[in-house]
Amino acid sequence: MTGAAMRVSQEEFEKAKDQLKLLKVDPGNEVKLKLYALFKQATEGPCSSPKPSMLDFVKKAKWDAWNSLGSLSKDNARQKYVDLVLSLVSSEPSSKAKDTTSESKQGYETLQVTTTDNITKIMLNRPDKKNAITTQMYREIIQAVEEAAKDDSVITVVTGNGDYYCSGNDLNNFTNIPSGGIEKMAKDGAVLLEDFVSHFIDFPKPLIAVVNGPAVGISVTLLGLFDIVYATDRATFHTPFSELGQSPEGCSSYMFPKIMGLPKANEMLLFNRKLTAREACTWGLVTEVFPDKTFEKEVWIRLKAYANLPKNSLALSKQLIRGVEKEMLHKVNCQECERLKERWLSDECMNAVLKFFEKKSKL
Amino acid sequence: MTGAAMRVSQEEFEKAKDQLKLLKVDPGNEVKLKLYALFKQATEGPCSSPKPSMLDFVKKAKWDAWNSLGSLSKDNARQKYVDLVLSLVSSEPSSKAKDTTSESKQGYETLQVTTTDNITKIMLNRPDKKNAITTQMYREIIQAVEEAAKDDSVITVVTGNGDYYCSGNDLNNFTNIPSGGIEKMAKDGAVLLEDFVSHFIDFPKPLIAVVNGPAVGISVTLLGLFDIVYATDRATFHTPFSELGQSPEGCSSYMFPKIMGLPKANEMLLFNRKLTAREACTWGLVTEVFPDKTFEKEVWIRLKAYANLPKNSLALSKQLIRGVEKEMLHKVNCQECERLKERWLSDECMNAVLKFFEKKSKL
Amino acid sequence: MTGAAMRVSQEEFEKAKDQLKLLKVDPGNEVKLKLYALFKQATEGPCSSPKPSMLDFVKKAKWDAWNSLGSLSKDNARQKYVDLVLSLVSSEPSSKAKDTTSESKQGYETLQVTTTDNITKIMLNRPDKKNAITTQMYREIIQAVEEAAKDDSVITVVTGNGDYYCSGNDLNNFTNIPSGGIEKMAKDGAVLLEDFVSHFIDFPKPLIAVVNGPAVGISVTLLGLFDIVYATDRATFHTPFSELGQSPEGCSSYMFPKIMGLPKANEMLLFNRKLTAREACTWGLVTEVFPDKTFEKEVWIRLKAYANLPKNSLALSKQLIRGVEKEMLHKVNCQECERLKERWLSDECMNAVLKFFEKKSKL
Repeated sequence: MTGAAMRVSQEEFEKAKDQLKLLKVDPGNEVKLKLYALFKQATEGPCSSPKPSMLDFVKKAKWDAWNSLGSLSKDNARQKYVDLVLSLVSSEPSSKAKDTTSESKQGYETLQVTTTDNITKIMLNRPDKKNAITTQMYREIIQAVEEAAKDDSVITVVTGNGDYYCSGNDLNNFTNIPSGGIEKMAKDGAVLLEDFVSHFIDFPKPLIAVVNGPAVGISVTLLGLFDIVYATDRATFHTPFSELGQSPEGCSSYMFPKIMGLPKANEMLLFNRKLTAREACTWGLVTEVFPDKTFEKEVWIRLKAYANLPKNSLALSKQLIRGVEKEMLHKVNCQECERLKERWLSDECMNAVLKFFEKKSKL
Repeated sequence: MTGAAMRVSQEEFEKAKDQLKLLKVDPGNEVKLKLYALFKQATEGPCSSPKPSMLDFVKKAKWDAWNSLGSLSKDNARQKYVDLVLSLVSSEPSSKAKDTTSESKQGYETLQVTTTDNITKIMLNRPDKKNAITTQMYREIIQAVEEAAKDDSVITVVTGNGDYYCSGNDLNNFTNIPSGGIEKMAKDGAVLLEDFVSHFIDFPKPLIAVVNGPAVGISVTLLGLFDIVYATDRATFHTPFSELGQSPEGCSSYMFPKIMGLPKANEMLLFNRKLTAREACTWGLVTEVFPDKTFEKEVWIRLKAYANLPKNSLALSKQLIRGVEKEMLHKVNCQECERLKERWLSDECMNAVLKFFEKKSKL
Repeated sequence: MTGAAMRVSQEEFEKAKDQLKLLKVDPGNEVKLKLYALFKQATEGPCSSPKPSMLDFVKKAKWDAWNSLGSLSKDNARQKYVDLVLSLVSSEPSSKAKDTTSESKQGYETLQVTTTDNITKIMLNRPDKKNAITTQMYREIIQAVEEAAKDDSVITVVTGNGDYYCSGNDLNNFTNIPSGGIEKMAKDGAVLLEDFVSHFIDFPKPLIAVVNGPAVGISVTLLGLFDIVYATDRATFHTPFSELGQSPEGCSSYMFPKIMGLPKANEMLLFNRKLTAREACTWGLVTEVFPDKTFEKEVWIRLKAYANLPKNSLALSKQLIRGVEKEMLHKVNCQECERLKERWLSDECMNAVLKFFEKKSKL
């Protein structure tokens, strides 16, 4: 019997061996042991080495797999090996060239959302408005976060386009008075905000902020719900709630005291202290600060390494850490939005917003 | 018709305009829009400009107010304008020169309590005893804190007179054995302490400690319930509970681990580590440290600015932050006082107090 | 009547006086006042000084005690004094030379456990294996911790023998597959781990880690349950859970975010960041760092001083601090072990462990 007469040629067998190396999705231990066994059976014939000790975990598992093939012929083993590899290759998700280019998600006007190398990146994309968050943008972020939660990525990153990370809530949101009047505006605003923050509380994978410049208001408070916060040394962190007659949101009334202690948290949340990136790092709000020049490069090298870690282990560990206070965070979120709804109707807030626009419009 | 024949003279009208600028209390947006409308009606007659866009919030509100006056005559508008200003002026709280001098509260022997520039300052005032807190002083602080909670001030400050901030519980409190014996003393002490600490848990406005020198015992533990802690670099922070056979109070058994983490908190609370001001700041107990030379000046400039922020926004934000753990804090306070009551009757505590007095009196 | 005719000789009386000074156990205030009174009565006769003021606590207590002896004769007082001292001496716990040498506990193979100067020291003792924790060692630590909880020591110290503090869970634990298969191994492992961690949650006295070198995995996460953590500057802190397809334990999913804030904690717990001793101290996981050269000396001077503080005050204060979150910690421990049990059976974990052994055995 020559090679040509074999049911599967040596060439096909070698090709299958090479294809195996290119698999993106780990087929799992059971399949890998089966591949090992078929390969041995196809190349060496039935298992004849002595049974390894119970304590030698790896050797024992391999031996068991090989031995279980009994007297299967080399030809049949080779055939089964090639079939198994082909079935693995064909079940790879959209295996053609997908991973070399990134996938850009359509349908966003205020964001740019892409998935590359197991990382979904949500980039706030109103650079001319310092990435201030309009009502539309709140809704688009909610949608992008929902999609990222379900896609195949290992980690999700939020960052800003341009010089700013995000200048916070766009105060123009206050001027679009609906027909139901200002009460309706406040009520709708509170419902939207609570929903928005909830998506960050419940996000099921590691969520990383890449703070590329100054951050204000809700974009700062929300950082307490991120798992990692990397910042350029050009970033600043400012939550001027009382100046605007408002009150803290994004669960910061609970998370900031946890992160930095009450005496520091209150200088930010009550008395509008603007932190430099270094201060924010010392106070615990930021994981690490990088020089602006090398910021993007250093951070993305690190993020790509993170995205190669075991996906389920990361997600389940994150859920474990978050789980213990998820209930509390939803309660806090609800209370913060209730209070803000009242605040938005108060004279203090109205005056502050009027002053802001008067300054801008010189009315 | 000459100016003199008008129901309200041009002079009266101009005077009202000037008085308006001197108002201390913001009359609120509704009144301000009415004033705007009456002024326009009195000087330009009925509104004839085109209705602004729905989206132009400020212009629209002003236009609505003016337009709502319909065909009201200039004379009547002028009259109503002056009447409205006068009613605002007369309803100002005791408008005569009150705010240039501070109001000093009477009836305190161990404190000096004043209210100036929207700030109520409670100064511990037994400098020759390093502001050690006697039973009477606990009661006076409770009263001062109750009054500050209700007065018109925006923020409340606690500080010490002299070189010390406060040397803690006056150990002479242990020597005033009532007729009920030492058990009665311990029981009364625990009730008083729990009430004292409760007032700090429930305080409804921003509460700021200006730590002008060394702080000991209860005056340190209580700092965990303050919203901001500013300290001179001459300050130290010492809680020698175990040395005195006692146990932590002021909710420090809960707040200190939250602020600085267990491994740091325990070196203070269990093992009597005395912190410098810089250490206390690094560990999160102190918001910021200032050079002793410029301490008072720098801090009070900042406090005066804080006291000009929107009052309700500050109070409601503080209550939001505190609210989430108020119940827990009262529970902790109760447990701490129960434990201390037992400790006060223990040999360990008795021995330590005896030793303290023996050292002092060389008996 | 000469000295020789007295029921108790002057010599015996003097000897009793000296023995009193050598007592190890404080006899308590009541006894001490009685000793004072008998001594005065024996040397000066009945009390004849004027009654001190109610306010002079110390004097009054002494006067009362002396006065209560009425007209007791000097001889009888002397007799009673000597009897009282002898009874105190004889009731001292095993008074012979016990405290100059340390007591080494028998029956441990993987630990060295000693009690000296009121300190029980549990030393991990597999230096050639970097003190990696085997199943047997988990069990021995549980036993040592149980015994330390009940013994007479004031504080308990955990440290490592050799260059390492502890290299974490011995991965060989994964290769001892019981007859019940891998599911049984995971189940047993989770039960053992939960029991192990529970003993640290419930430990009733101050518990101090003396981190003499690198620490990995469970030996790091457990530090969040210690009261004090002292480290040499040669120590590092590493929790590579996700690399091994696993998830955090030792209550770190709850305590680490409390200690250092979420953004720092997650870089350790999710993304395997290895901290230097200085970083661990800045982040709050370590109380203080010492130069390696003087580490042992400096730390043990401090620990000996701690062990002389009032024992009950320390234990009760620690229990007060721990009490407020004991229930939460047990809940977290249970959830962490549940999750780990699933993880241990996952492909991600199997692959990581296989890879680890393949690297070692070059299979």
